[in-house]
Amino acid sequence: MPTSEQDFLAVIDRHFPDRGEHVLLGRGDDCAIIGLDPGQPGGGRLCLSTDLFVENVHFRRSYFSPADIGHKALAAAASDLAGMGAAPVGFALSLALPEGLDDGFLDQLLAGMAELSGRLSLPLIGGDLSRGPVLALDVVVLGRPGPSGRLLKRGQARPGDALLLLGDIGLARAGLLELECRGECDPAAWPAARAAHLRPEPRIAEGLALAQIVTADGPAVSGLMDVSDGLTRDLPRFLGPYGADISLNGDQLHPEVAAYFSARGEDPVEAALLGGEDYALLASTSPERLPMVLAVLPQARVIGAVSSEPGVRLNSGALLRQGFDHFAGRETA
Amino acid sequence: MPTSEQDFLAVIDRHFPDRGEHVLLGRGDDCAIIGLDPGQPGGGRLCLSTDLFVENVHFRRSYFSPADIGHKALAAAASDLAGMGAAPVGFALSLALPEGLDDGFLDQLLAGMAELSGRLSLPLIGGDLSRGPVLALDVVVLGRPGPSGRLLKRGQARPGDALLLLGDIGLARAGLLELECRGECDPAAWPAARAAHLRPEPRIAEGLALAQIVTADGPAVSGLMDVSDGLTRDLPRFLGPYGADISLNGDQLHPEVAAYFSARGEDPVEAALLGGEDYALLASTSPERLPMVLAVLPQARVIGAVSSEPGVRLNSGALLRQGFDHFAGRETA
Repeated sequence: MPTSEQDFLAVIDRHFPDRGEHVLLGRGDDCAIIGLDPGQPGGGRLCLSTDLFVENVHFRRSYFSPADIGHKALAAAASDLAGMGAAPVGFALSLALPEGLDDGFLDQLLAGMAELSGRLSLPLIGGDLSRGPVLALDVVVLGRPGPSGRLLKRGQARPGDALLLLGDIGLARAGLLELECRGECDPAAWPAARAAHLRPEPRIAEGLALAQIVTADGPAVSGLMDVSDGLTRDLPRFLGPYGADISLNGDQLHPEVAAYFSARGEDPVEAALLGGEDYALLASTSPERLPMVLAVLPQARVIGAVSSEPGVRLNSGALLRQGFDHFAGRETA
Repeated sequence: MPTSEQDFLAVIDRHFPDRGEHVLLGRGDDCAIIGLDPGQPGGGRLCLSTDLFVENVHFRRSYFSPADIGHKALAAAASDLAGMGAAPVGFALSLALPEGLDDGFLDQLLAGMAELSGRLSLPLIGGDLSRGPVLALDVVVLGRPGPSGRLLKRGQARPGDALLLLGDIGLARAGLLELECRGECDPAAWPAARAAHLRPEPRIAEGLALAQIVTADGPAVSGLMDVSDGLTRDLPRFLGPYGADISLNGDQLHPEVAAYFSARGEDPVEAALLGGEDYALLASTSPERLPMVLAVLPQARVIGAVSSEPGVRLNSGALLRQGFDHFAGRETA
């Protein structure tokens, strides 16, 4: 049985062709891109992504409030729209409910989801309901190109491009570790880390803004993706055939990330790069266009550059992949 | 907690507005209709529906083969496109897999799904994978208007309209009862009924054909829906404020439906109207346009007429709703 999304895609590929009259971009990016009117320039393009959020796999009811569950299921899915620079269209919710939830539970879950839905202008457009042995949500998000008509993909960065990061990495990882803590844990400690895990904010506005920066030669941003599995795993997906030189130190991390992992005797930078569920955005742009991008989004941080030499090197040191192999098997699903 | 899709919609309505810039038709029909380019006539309209298919709620692995599961999950979702008269665009699959499935299981499931996907020209465009305590599939289907530019809704029939049925009712119900049979059952008996439950065929081609019959005054077919919860439940949803006079006898039912329920001492017509998972199509058209519709789809059967008098009467007799209240609570989810 497949144990990762990559394995799953391989099984899927054996049975389903990755093309179709209306399929402009198939599987493997943050979203698929559908063209409803393939004959018409720019007309009827749609982004679609789907995200499962299953009890005891992606969340636990022991430390997620019902509203947290509703929020995060939608946030995780919406982050895939951010990763394409898409504007929100709407979402569909399929919900499997176990027996024995109290009456307020569903109301609170939907209230948490509705709050984010309203804030993102991402309305609920459909859904389905079923009984099930555990609480499970499947959220399908739809988006469309913003005014520039551009959607941004991964695998488009070129050697020399600067790598930009929007958002904190490692913070949700610290939050997860703390929330999963058994025994002597202070429930008031590490509030930002806990919030990053329970209530991530999809960076729809920033993704959309990145896709609107256009020069006479095309989009200023060459590639974009959301960082949901940690930079260590997501960077190779972003880079395609190329490598990267990453320059990152503890001062560039959220203070709770630096303090949390230092207190555990771990290297905060390595832990942050491992990350997971960061829902940060990773973008690339040429050195000439970098000032234009930073003028629009000054909160973006340059964390390195794309290299024609394969492999990802951290602070001129060892290859990232090798450096973190010992983490394999420690990930949550 | 809500126990039906109607209850669920009521809870949803408390939290989510049923509108949005791109929402042309909200919740409550077979599909939602999205308008990507609301300013442009006919441009960028999309149908969307989502369907959960959960082990031990919608199917059992004891009598569904892996390929049956893959087929039916997609068929049930695709039937919602048929119910709008939409042309297939693609689908997304979210799949939760329990531990311990043997290696061939997922391959066979996907092969069953891929066979129908290819036949319907409904390609897989995205998906997600997770562990879960039981096998669960969520299928999201996307469609678009055919060449006429028309999508057909429920709640549009007018008094005097003929009611047309495409497909068998009650056959899948007989199949379910037989498949759930404990004890002395002949596994070769009632083959059509078993197949109707395990391998329903979504009527995409017929739904699409219905939506293409257009006169100078507009579509020849006033209303359309797929019959998935049984005519007894679905007719009131189709009729809106109106009623209907239904005329149906055993000769119009599939021979296995007539024989199966007669053998159990039940009225085959009542059992067929209760139905469930028929994936038949219910359409309405004015008496003047009926010949035109029957010329295109001669397999359609007239089963009655819309009436300005509320309630659904069977063979000039009692109200359908009252007649079948004793079945309440016997439904599978």
